[in-house]
Amino acid sequence: MRLLRKLLPALPAVLLVGLPAVAGAQEVTAEDAMFAVNNTWMLVATFLVFLMHMGFTGLEVGLTQAKNATNILFKNMSIIAIGLLTYAVVGFNLMYPGDFLIGGFFGFAGFGVGTDPDGLTAAYDPGYTYWTDFIFQGMFAATAATIVSGAVAERIKLSSFLIFSTIYVALVYPVLGSWQWGGGWLDQMGFYDFAGSTLVHSVGGWAALAGVIVLGPRIGKYVNGTIRPIRGHNLPIAVFGMFLLWFGWFGFNGGSVLSADPADVSFVFVTTALAAAAGIIGAMLTTWTVHDHPDATMVLNGALAGLVGITAGADVVSVMSSIIIGLAAGVIVVFSVILLDKWKLDDPVGAISVHLTCGIWGTLAVGIFGGSDFSIVTQLIAVASYGAVAFGAAMVLFLAIKAVIGVRVTEDEERIGLDIAEHNMEAYPDFQIFSNR
Amino acid sequence: MRLLRKLLPALPAVLLVGLPAVAGAQEVTAEDAMFAVNNTWMLVATFLVFLMHMGFTGLEVGLTQAKNATNILFKNMSIIAIGLLTYAVVGFNLMYPGDFLIGGFFGFAGFGVGTDPDGLTAAYDPGYTYWTDFIFQGMFAATAATIVSGAVAERIKLSSFLIFSTIYVALVYPVLGSWQWGGGWLDQMGFYDFAGSTLVHSVGGWAALAGVIVLGPRIGKYVNGTIRPIRGHNLPIAVFGMFLLWFGWFGFNGGSVLSADPADVSFVFVTTALAAAAGIIGAMLTTWTVHDHPDATMVLNGALAGLVGITAGADVVSVMSSIIIGLAAGVIVVFSVILLDKWKLDDPVGAISVHLTCGIWGTLAVGIFGGSDFSIVTQLIAVASYGAVAFGAAMVLFLAIKAVIGVRVTEDEERIGLDIAEHNMEAYPDFQIFSNR
Amino acid sequence: MRLLRKLLPALPAVLLVGLPAVAGAQEVTAEDAMFAVNNTWMLVATFLVFLMHMGFTGLEVGLTQAKNATNILFKNMSIIAIGLLTYAVVGFNLMYPGDFLIGGFFGFAGFGVGTDPDGLTAAYDPGYTYWTDFIFQGMFAATAATIVSGAVAERIKLSSFLIFSTIYVALVYPVLGSWQWGGGWLDQMGFYDFAGSTLVHSVGGWAALAGVIVLGPRIGKYVNGTIRPIRGHNLPIAVFGMFLLWFGWFGFNGGSVLSADPADVSFVFVTTALAAAAGIIGAMLTTWTVHDHPDATMVLNGALAGLVGITAGADVVSVMSSIIIGLAAGVIVVFSVILLDKWKLDDPVGAISVHLTCGIWGTLAVGIFGGSDFSIVTQLIAVASYGAVAFGAAMVLFLAIKAVIGVRVTEDEERIGLDIAEHNMEAYPDFQIFSNR
Repeated sequence: MRLLRKLLPALPAVLLVGLPAVAGAQEVTAEDAMFAVNNTWMLVATFLVFLMHMGFTGLEVGLTQAKNATNILFKNMSIIAIGLLTYAVVGFNLMYPGDFLIGGFFGFAGFGVGTDPDGLTAAYDPGYTYWTDFIFQGMFAATAATIVSGAVAERIKLSSFLIFSTIYVALVYPVLGSWQWGGGWLDQMGFYDFAGSTLVHSVGGWAALAGVIVLGPRIGKYVNGTIRPIRGHNLPIAVFGMFLLWFGWFGFNGGSVLSADPADVSFVFVTTALAAAAGIIGAMLTTWTVHDHPDATMVLNGALAGLVGITAGADVVSVMSSIIIGLAAGVIVVFSVILLDKWKLDDPVGAISVHLTCGIWGTLAVGIFGGSDFSIVTQLIAVASYGAVAFGAAMVLFLAIKAVIGVRVTEDEERIGLDIAEHNMEAYPDFQIFSNR
Repeated sequence: MRLLRKLLPALPAVLLVGLPAVAGAQEVTAEDAMFAVNNTWMLVATFLVFLMHMGFTGLEVGLTQAKNATNILFKNMSIIAIGLLTYAVVGFNLMYPGDFLIGGFFGFAGFGVGTDPDGLTAAYDPGYTYWTDFIFQGMFAATAATIVSGAVAERIKLSSFLIFSTIYVALVYPVLGSWQWGGGWLDQMGFYDFAGSTLVHSVGGWAALAGVIVLGPRIGKYVNGTIRPIRGHNLPIAVFGMFLLWFGWFGFNGGSVLSADPADVSFVFVTTALAAAAGIIGAMLTTWTVHDHPDATMVLNGALAGLVGITAGADVVSVMSSIIIGLAAGVIVVFSVILLDKWKLDDPVGAISVHLTCGIWGTLAVGIFGGSDFSIVTQLIAVASYGAVAFGAAMVLFLAIKAVIGVRVTEDEERIGLDIAEHNMEAYPDFQIFSNR
Repeated sequence: MRLLRKLLPALPAVLLVGLPAVAGAQEVTAEDAMFAVNNTWMLVATFLVFLMHMGFTGLEVGLTQAKNATNILFKNMSIIAIGLLTYAVVGFNLMYPGDFLIGGFFGFAGFGVGTDPDGLTAAYDPGYTYWTDFIFQGMFAATAATIVSGAVAERIKLSSFLIFSTIYVALVYPVLGSWQWGGGWLDQMGFYDFAGSTLVHSVGGWAALAGVIVLGPRIGKYVNGTIRPIRGHNLPIAVFGMFLLWFGWFGFNGGSVLSADPADVSFVFVTTALAAAAGIIGAMLTTWTVHDHPDATMVLNGALAGLVGITAGADVVSVMSSIIIGLAAGVIVVFSVILLDKWKLDDPVGAISVHLTCGIWGTLAVGIFGGSDFSIVTQLIAVASYGAVAFGAAMVLFLAIKAVIGVRVTEDEERIGLDIAEHNMEAYPDFQIFSNR
């Protein structure tokens, strides 16, 4: 467990210069070395999670139309910036409020991030420094907003999206996170969510669902009762996105061990990798049967489904269970996509199916496969509580933005594409593009 | 050397929860810290090798035609899944059978992967846990099949390829691996292959050669005695693939030290990087002279040739030798590509030249540059033995599949491209594509 | 500070085999474990910096025209090879000449790289081995030449560029580096440049400026007093490049701590990430105001501007200052691009604005935000000294090459594109391209 403390405002950084570098200190203890390896692993996990933002970018841009590519790239670059900066200003202190947490529901430890000398040593936590703690968690924060980005793509107004994301990632995500990882009421109740099937993925997924409902489907998606596929324009870059997300997940799950403990981190690597592999096989078999062609975008989403599915219980289910959880996630994601389309919920990249549907599945799977320490009822209570508040908050936010400045571009803007309409810049000016599919 | 042991079936994973996290334990020893840093490095190497699959994907998709891009992406996603899952079910226990190895040729320690409490501590190996061992080696396994994928691209039936890959990676690769890394007859004989010039790359390369022979060339490649280049459709993504493979090779070779030993790992980084750099220069100079234009795809393959070439001896040749080995590999790969084309062996991405030809070169180079501890005769015996069995097994497999369900798509399917024929999904639906070159 | 020593010529590498692996040694000390974790982190930083070359590749190829893509890919693959090999032959011994440094300005410790047994242990440096030192610094070297590549793109002759790069990276970069990191006169004077805002980025940027002046603008860029934008042809791959550069920067700055010291490395991660995030926001707000459309390529350059800006002082400014430095860099880069265009200095990717302008900004920012240990006057003296010598040397080199073999392709070659003119190979042969914009 991480130490929660009231932190002093940032010291003049020059003080850092004066600190003896551990590497050069006269006497090195085994504790020093262990602290260094733990902290190094957590920083490695941090840059892996950072790269997931590149993965989301590839996935979203590849699975949508060429005429909206610049817009999607712009949004993804903005979100990582907004996520990190708001986390520095308010998010971290909302999510880990320490003694300020009132009734297990809400707490705030103050604006800005800072440290005291203890924050730089193992006295803060044997696993990492204060700064590592902040930056690792900060990389998670933006993820929730990124998930929304894919679902609302190709029709949301840029400014409206940026406003929504800023508020959601600055306030909603961290407060909801404090319920569990900040030591709040669900943590006290025995809820278990190792790396965030619910806290990160379904929190993003609920907002994606709210956005899709408020926006409505893209023009031409559902016409006269038929569902018309709007294919992604660049499949190689979407698959690159999938590989980068899987790559980053080794940090997302592996870093959630919160130390370099050899047994735990290596076990989590195995369950994470096998669940993703099984997700591919699950989606492949399902789509080959259901669609009668093996569908590459479904296989891609199958890998991600397996990863979201294993995230809640990566350290507490057996290796065999991780394969079953991933396999099931790969099947579930295909049917979820079909079902959402039947309900005319237009999600261009399948974000809701991957992150919400499989986030719920993964959270419940802890109750099913995690052994007697975990209760499926508690897991269900948490799923429902997160659903109610995350979906509700996102709905209120989207409706408020709609009322004030609108959320959707005009029909003309949607037809010519957001790249010209919003940015006056095509993503592929040298290529002959069909933009009026 | 890794400890080989009979492993108990998987313990209920919940037991893991009860283990004291090393990071939080009361007394930390220097051995604990060293075990943690070793294991952390091996997990970092694992995620680097994982990313090589993204590299292969980029390379193959970029160096082939747009009309087959979806198919290639699909195959590469499938292979990593098949590789990891079969390695969990049978591969790991075939490759490292421990006491079950009979006569140094074949052994099997049982289905599934599991662990006993020792597998989670330095008692298993001071360099890594059982799970790290499994997942690091598992990432290697799929590589062999991926090498085949590039060579047989643009004309192999999807189902036939998936069946071949599954059997080759599940059975042939691990049994051949046990001859050396599993402590088998070649290991006892003094053969040396540090990270797999032969065990991984040429094992993949021999199967690629068998596939190319059984399939025959693509339509339009060799017409009336002339060789017609069929250019790759997306060079930037192919070059991204090369960079990712090089990046991953720091884990492939660096992780083959099997610990974080500072002297060995840093030395291997240097020989690996310089061989790749020299491979680029070797291929550049050769192609500029031979083709009279500097050829970007040859330079790309020159880097990979240098990497394959240094893989067998990265830890036992001098830095100057690593440059010579890489330079020679860069020259060799160009002539190998020319020669294969002369023999009408159509390998769209140059996989045979990179992985087989330079895999052999690298293996022999240990005998030439590695000093008196190594015998070129032993290296040659190993090359020949691996060649006979790997090529033979792949040939039998491909011919058996051909006899039962066929291996090649129809002429019509090949002309319209496998994306429509096999997947009913174009990779670039928004772009104007020339598909009938 | 790293130990500077005269190194013996390379030992036969087989000696390495005889060394006891630290991991398997009988008695492990805490110093051993700390040495292993330090060295492991430095090798991780090394592969991160390596990946920046993939990032530069993506950025440059994406922000230029499709008809020059093969050429740009070729150049970027060549540069990493040239950079590493020349660094092995002369660069490392020019940059870190140790006792050979004469008057703080120039020194050379001999051709080639080698080591003595001490180079493999903590006796060399508690933070890394000799080989780690070499390969980490070697990855930096090529960066300077890569920066030039983007600025001179789409009109420079391939052979001229390769000659320039080889000389600049082999001789100019390391000698200039020795002034500070090699313990030279600026180091003695109290100049501070943590990871290379000046030593790497502006050294590259000055050469880029010289190249742009000698070459002149691309055809059609400045016509009858108007500035005509020549859009990049593949925005997704440019954005991938930006993400990879940011990713690599965690190693560029994080590795410049020269150990895995938890306090310093984690602090540098935070300032690096927040400066990049703030750079995005700074560029976004500026471009939205100035251009009235939010400009995706400017936002991309804003992130890089923030990263270059924080590089000089990442370990000595406060977190709040890092945000201000990044924000300012994001504003500065937009105006720098506008100004250079006004002066008809045609830099296709904005390399001069990102690396030179913001490199100067970051160097001065140490004097402004770094506290009383740093003098803005000293920082200015260093900026001016580096500018005079780097720009002067690059100018002389470019003019000499121009006099002997020419630096610019013919007008016809420029119009049809360098891919056909220099390489006889299109990057996207399957796509309908507009090549005569």
